Order: sequence, then C-alpha cells, then structure tokens
Amino acid sequence: MNDYQFKLVRLEGDFVWHSHPDTDEAFIVIDGEMVIDFRDGNVTLGPGEMYVVPRGQEHKPRASRECRIMLIEPVGTVNTGDAGGPMTAENDVWI
Amino acid sequence: MNDYQFKLVRLEGDFVWHSHPDTDEAFIVIDGEMVIDFRDGNVTLGPGEMYVVPRGQEHKPRASRECRIMLIEPVGTVNTGDAGGPMTAENDVWI
Repeated sequence: MNDYQFKLVRLEGDFVWHSHPDTDEAFIVIDGEMVIDFRDGNVTLGPGEMYVVPRGQEHKPRASRECRIMLIEPVGTVNTGDAGGPMTAENDVWI
Repeated sequence: MNDYQFKLVRLEGDFVWHSHPDTDEAFIVIDGEMVIDFRDGNVTLGPGEMYVVPRGQEHKPRASRECRIMLIEPVGTVNTGDAGGPMTAENDVWI
C-alpha cells in the first residue's frame, strides 16, 4: 500500500533485541499469542490484537508456540532493524 | 503509525462512489461481510480478509448487515475522497 508492505510472519521462540531508528512498526496477531518485550516491560497480544512499536524503541518479539503475525511497515524495513545478524531475513518475498 | 491512521468503521448499507486520487487504501474486515464495488466488478471480504484499493480507483463499499472494518490510510484521508457530500465524516476522532 503506497510505500508500505504487509509482511506475514511465523514466529516461534525468541527473536533478537533490535529497534528501527527510522520507523514505527505495527504488529497484528492473526493466530496464536506473542509477547513483545521492552526494556521496561512487555505486552501480550492474542488473535486480532495489534500494537505499534514506536521508532527507536528497543523490542524483542517472542512466542512460546508458533504465532502468525502481520507486520505493517515501510517497504524495505529490515526485520532485525539495527541489530543485524543471522536472523536477518530477505525482504520483498511475495506470497 | 508514522503518518498513517488506523480507522475503525461500522458500515451498514451503501456508501458513496468515490476515489482517493493521492493514496491507496487498505480495508481489513474485523467482523461481518462487506462488498467493495468497482466500475468493472466487485470483491467480497469476510472476517480477517483484506484488500488494498489502488489510488484513483473508483469504489463503493457496501454491507447488507453491519460490518466492522479497519482502514489503513495516510492521516487526514477523507472518507468520501473526491466525492464529498453528507456522508463525509470528521477525521482524527480517537477511541
């Protein structure tokens, strides 16, 4: 949509701590349950719930069982943000 | 999120034909069923389904029974687009 992407994600286990210095990031849970850890707390999201992580805020998504999520963010946003590393995924994979 | 708004809408009956010359518009159905008419066809959306109407494309949302929808679009996007009229709603109403 315009210059934004809708990204479908399966999350299981702990993702890496990271932040996106230049953009907010919206999480919408489709199925399952996930937690977003922040340095000073966390938020738990179930099906149909959403949360917008503000730009620059460190966060670590995690899910004890597979959780299906839709992310909304500018095209080209890197999943690991400023952290990089082996969990960095390719962008622009269309399904 | 950034300069985008998530707009929660209850739709029942026929909305007006309109288009948004400057932006795409994403529809996500939360509950119920809706139809988006185009000049050359239509699309039916149920719970959890989404559709992005491209900028400039004339469309008319409708629902035979109340349908609950989330729209994603740039802040300040007018619901009736280029059509105006009595169905134009106030923007920036926070809930």
